[in-house]
Amino acid sequence: MIRVGILGSTGSIGESTLNVVRRHPDIFRITALATHRRVEALAAQVQEFGPAVAVIASDSAGDLPEDGSGTRWYRGREALVSLAVRDDVDVVVNAVVGAAGLEPTLGALRAGKRLALANKESLVAGGALVLAAARDGGGELVPVDSEHSAILQCIHGCPDEAVSRVILTASGGPFRGWTVDRLREVGPAEALNHPTWSMGAKISIDSATLANKALEVIEGHFLFGVPYESIEAVVHPQSIVHSFVEFVDGSILAQVGDPTMELPILYALTHPRRRADPALRTFDPVAASPLTFERVDREAFPLYGLGVDAGAAGGLAPAYFNAANEVAVEAFLQERIGFLDMGDVVAAAVDRAPRMEPSGLDVVLEGDREARRLAWAGVERLETGRSGVR
Amino acid sequence: MIRVGILGSTGSIGESTLNVVRRHPDIFRITALATHRRVEALAAQVQEFGPAVAVIASDSAGDLPEDGSGTRWYRGREALVSLAVRDDVDVVVNAVVGAAGLEPTLGALRAGKRLALANKESLVAGGALVLAAARDGGGELVPVDSEHSAILQCIHGCPDEAVSRVILTASGGPFRGWTVDRLREVGPAEALNHPTWSMGAKISIDSATLANKALEVIEGHFLFGVPYESIEAVVHPQSIVHSFVEFVDGSILAQVGDPTMELPILYALTHPRRRADPALRTFDPVAASPLTFERVDREAFPLYGLGVDAGAAGGLAPAYFNAANEVAVEAFLQERIGFLDMGDVVAAAVDRAPRMEPSGLDVVLEGDREARRLAWAGVERLETGRSGVR
Repeated sequence: MIRVGILGSTGSIGESTLNVVRRHPDIFRITALATHRRVEALAAQVQEFGPAVAVIASDSAGDLPEDGSGTRWYRGREALVSLAVRDDVDVVVNAVVGAAGLEPTLGALRAGKRLALANKESLVAGGALVLAAARDGGGELVPVDSEHSAILQCIHGCPDEAVSRVILTASGGPFRGWTVDRLREVGPAEALNHPTWSMGAKISIDSATLANKALEVIEGHFLFGVPYESIEAVVHPQSIVHSFVEFVDGSILAQVGDPTMELPILYALTHPRRRADPALRTFDPVAASPLTFERVDREAFPLYGLGVDAGAAGGLAPAYFNAANEVAVEAFLQERIGFLDMGDVVAAAVDRAPRMEPSGLDVVLEGDREARRLAWAGVERLETGRSGVR
Repeated sequence: MIRVGILGSTGSIGESTLNVVRRHPDIFRITALATHRRVEALAAQVQEFGPAVAVIASDSAGDLPEDGSGTRWYRGREALVSLAVRDDVDVVVNAVVGAAGLEPTLGALRAGKRLALANKESLVAGGALVLAAARDGGGELVPVDSEHSAILQCIHGCPDEAVSRVILTASGGPFRGWTVDRLREVGPAEALNHPTWSMGAKISIDSATLANKALEVIEGHFLFGVPYESIEAVVHPQSIVHSFVEFVDGSILAQVGDPTMELPILYALTHPRRRADPALRTFDPVAASPLTFERVDREAFPLYGLGVDAGAAGGLAPAYFNAANEVAVEAFLQERIGFLDMGDVVAAAVDRAPRMEPSGLDVVLEGDREARRLAWAGVERLETGRSGVR
């Protein structure tokens, strides 16, 4: 029996994880669930899965439900972190959104847990700290993201030195093939319209700007120890090939299939084994044909190159990239800046990032705050400049 | 140092193996070489690689060269078989053409060698015997064929029960998409014109009729223990995806890359490790785009279904299929029968195949002869019928 704790159980990854658990009650048991602030949704999950503990991370969310079912309810950020290190949790699924995910990641790995990681910030902002925590505590880091899961599946048991290159695939988002001029006029409504995956607003915008691929390149660097010059993204509009891995002998493996989050989640829970799941066996290459691949247009999607360069620069640059990008997306969704302005806002913030490796969690979180401050200042400068022109 | 013996060193697989060895002199040494009857070509190889022994398998080929270089020369079928069991050979590359390849296959496996198998007849005609020889002698069977190498690479270390389906890719040959009516008029010259691989005449015709895929399905069944209902072929004209493997959790891995025989050969020699070979690192998904997949047209290419059914029928049916197909191809190349007649010739022979599993090599070889006799009789019936009509 694999005892599973889910941080962020009411979000999309959390719900998909529960779907997987629901189909395999003989091998998985839910022992801990946590939401940011969706109290009612969590209460329904608690009723169905009967975990030992349930956590509402936000201090400002509604009242905790009555404790009648045998589940103990807690509130607050510390409760979230302590959930990740409980004795009755074997695998922690970290689907927390944002920098708040880093502390439970470090805790779970230091406690020797398997960490099924969906929280991008853990590796992007705190990659070196996360690897150190896994080393110190004996924890095991397994990706949940479909691209990184694909890479892990392709590498499956091959030694690191056998891997020569990683090619992440990108759907290309709704603006694939668009010119810079046309992108200048794009608003939030168009950017939220993703072709192949149904996702939240932040992730949809990141997919439209290809910032998500930069984040994934950085994650891939830390997850698989591949140098930046050996990781690239290629645009693949059908989202059928989830990534390629090239080996030193020139052989390439790819993991392919219809897009679903449930397979990478199932694999993260059972890795290196595979669990039979007929519900996920749907792939037909003829139906998926044709599969096409294009280069990333770095001029039209500057956040991709900015993010990869931030990763290669190291220090706090990737943390700054991530935080400034969040601000830029928020400002874009509020229609305060344009689509192409996001790159300028992020570039200005990343330029100011310290190149020194962070010594601890507090340094990363302070960097995150500073990058946000710089990015909001950048947004305001753009607004001022624009109103001056008008 | 891996000591390599090549049976069929002057053919296409043999030459490719020597290319691989030439690039990696630090890990491979050629200790034995054999040709059917290309004495001069073998003498040149012997001069370059200095094996301990060289064999001319045909009794009717020219004189053995003078023995001056320290290489000992032998002649005849028995010499070929004894080459496969020599103490100074670690890996036997069996690239013999035809049923003559079966005996060295059995010998190498019984002697506990690694057998890099390019001889289709070994598994198609004698699959059960070959598996028994490997079991008894502790030999290891590794495919050299690009499709089966792809499957082995995708499975890499996963237990058999984790594999749920195998999808072999087929280029589709020069007549992909052609109607039955149009195929009726096809002659040898058109059929020898293969779109992506440069090959010998027999293999080119098998690729044009898709008989080669039926043979590969049968080989795949024996190599990977996958039941026939879980192996299929899909047409993929670009020959970039070399095969797919589906696992029980619905995940699919594919091995992809530019077509080259050298990678599967290198992998067969180094499996499960990979050896760095920058000469083989050439894949660019953008240059390879688009990748397309189509169903096999079983009406236009009846040899595919006939072969798969023969495999599923078991006993001597796959041996009969293989032998009758060789005859049909020869008769077609001689312009004695038409393109679509090949299916009829083979079907009539396979219908007469004993369903009992062969008890030994002599039964298989006798079956091979009987199938050829039946197939030639079928060719003659067709000729007689046709001249009667005219």
